[in-house]
Amino acid sequence: MVTLLPDILQVLRTIGSRVDEKMLELLAEGAAKDFHEVVFHQVQAGGKRIRPALSILFCEATGGSLEDALSSAAAIELTHNYSLILDDIIDDANVRRNLPTTWKKFGLSFAILASTHYREAIEEGVLQSPNPLPIARIIADTIRELVEGERLDVLFEQLPGDQDYADKHRYHDVNLEDYESMIGYKTAALIRAACEVGVICAGGSKELQSAARNFGWKAGIAFQLADDILDLFAEEAKLGKKLGKDIYEHKLGNAIILHAIPLLSDTDRSFVLNVLRSPEPTESEVMKIIKLLKQTEASSIVQKQAKQLVDAAKKALKAFPNQKSTQLLTSLVDFIYQRSF
Amino acid sequence: MVTLLPDILQVLRTIGSRVDEKMLELLAEGAAKDFHEVVFHQVQAGGKRIRPALSILFCEATGGSLEDALSSAAAIELTHNYSLILDDIIDDANVRRNLPTTWKKFGLSFAILASTHYREAIEEGVLQSPNPLPIARIIADTIRELVEGERLDVLFEQLPGDQDYADKHRYHDVNLEDYESMIGYKTAALIRAACEVGVICAGGSKELQSAARNFGWKAGIAFQLADDILDLFAEEAKLGKKLGKDIYEHKLGNAIILHAIPLLSDTDRSFVLNVLRSPEPTESEVMKIIKLLKQTEASSIVQKQAKQLVDAAKKALKAFPNQKSTQLLTSLVDFIYQRSF
Repeated sequence: MVTLLPDILQVLRTIGSRVDEKMLELLAEGAAKDFHEVVFHQVQAGGKRIRPALSILFCEATGGSLEDALSSAAAIELTHNYSLILDDIIDDANVRRNLPTTWKKFGLSFAILASTHYREAIEEGVLQSPNPLPIARIIADTIRELVEGERLDVLFEQLPGDQDYADKHRYHDVNLEDYESMIGYKTAALIRAACEVGVICAGGSKELQSAARNFGWKAGIAFQLADDILDLFAEEAKLGKKLGKDIYEHKLGNAIILHAIPLLSDTDRSFVLNVLRSPEPTESEVMKIIKLLKQTEASSIVQKQAKQLVDAAKKALKAFPNQKSTQLLTSLVDFIYQRSF
Repeated sequence: MVTLLPDILQVLRTIGSRVDEKMLELLAEGAAKDFHEVVFHQVQAGGKRIRPALSILFCEATGGSLEDALSSAAAIELTHNYSLILDDIIDDANVRRNLPTTWKKFGLSFAILASTHYREAIEEGVLQSPNPLPIARIIADTIRELVEGERLDVLFEQLPGDQDYADKHRYHDVNLEDYESMIGYKTAALIRAACEVGVICAGGSKELQSAARNFGWKAGIAFQLADDILDLFAEEAKLGKKLGKDIYEHKLGNAIILHAIPLLSDTDRSFVLNVLRSPEPTESEVMKIIKLLKQTEASSIVQKQAKQLVDAAKKALKAFPNQKSTQLLTSLVDFIYQRSF
């Protein structure tokens, strides 16, 4: 029997518009009128809303409704956007989704104040959820994991700086285990939280919570692998930011780069590492690295790994009663994986 | 009958050491070992611990114990320290309590990550409290008020910058009403929260919560007035930071300056405003302003206002059953007021 795949992009759009409305409501709470444009900027820049869709679909898969999960789903997507505002300050990034970043548009002080306000909009969403206490616990744990992921990401950067702390703790070598630890914290933890929170909003059992965590973790790692591929090999216009951003930002913490390095000739490897350690890589240097990386097997190794994770994630869906929603979750995880091609 | 005033400094020390221990425990939770020195720096720089003492004394005044209030008291003091890390970034401040500020010592990226981690240590304290949900609500509201207070404080600065948003919304004139709104958000809101949270930890009635809020608000405004006096007229060594910091930071939002301006001659007023608007005020300019301000009545006007608030705050204490603790609260509010002499 052939099943037509539901149009997951349409589902993302429908869920996205409800989540966007809720996020703006949560952000407006306790914000002066003059501050709205500052706090709205990041979420109004758009986004695929994959994380809140996971919360809502897991809530529905457990037997709950969109309404049950809406506040938590918005809190999850606000958490993602909170981390983006901060990442852009830390990475000195000027553009995201083809728009100036919050700090670039409003200055450092107001971006910091906006991010601080985001955290309380997240709390607002948590407090409006059906089971606020376990959700508050998950959000608190997850944000600390995001912090640790970002800390490692900074310490994996290869540009020596003028800060004693960073220089003392910098990773001069990053192995795949370090990398997996970093992306687990930085990306998979929040995706796992998105899934688990959905089950909790529907009052699901510990067993279903654990299945959702399992799905989220694997899908989250696959998501980051896809992101690493996109960062280097996407079409720039579609990406909404500079191609090779990880190279410009001196980041050794990209799966493609880590897999490619041992496969390169000594000369090419030295070239790549030297560019990563130079203060301002030029566009032609970055393009040359991308070309070198493309010639290796790295991309197919990483894609294969992502595919295995996606297949394993799907198995965790069997535990859920509502098979219509699990089918949508299957499409969503396929979408996460396929967007890297 | 003469009652010996209890030694409030001794009480602050005793409470402070318990709160310090609890804060470090909350900060260590979910922080990598290498990150401890970064997150501990701000709280280990010390502080009078007035806010957690208010929480604990209000808990005791309501009939609860130190243990009942400890997690919340630590969360309140962490909230204060969270705001200090962020203020120091926003104000570009290098020194606090005679030590380098967190961003100065560890760099901007790690200071931002540390502050983000602080917010989750606060959440941890809230979740360990006897009545977590109402306390989570108060903390979320209060942090948004802190953000708004800081936003106004920045917009009251008189140095034109290169940011469209700040330039568009800057206050070219700050009146006493604007000022009171700013310090209400920036200082009094958290002190009010400290008091209210103490009552909630003891399971106190709505009436007692409201009395504590009333006390906290008035004591909080008095506290900021005392701080404004100290910023300009304290002994620098005792202050632990530069005398006249508000002037160096172009701040019109200081009660002494606002009260003095209409009392100055036209020439002196122009001088003061010009220095506040100059990119880098020199030490001799700042000292001259302090001398001009000292010659006005501003200091005695502000001290009188603080005294009235302190007297009104004390009246709110009558509602509480445990008079031993309310006596300590009386001493504490006197201490807050008197440290400005």
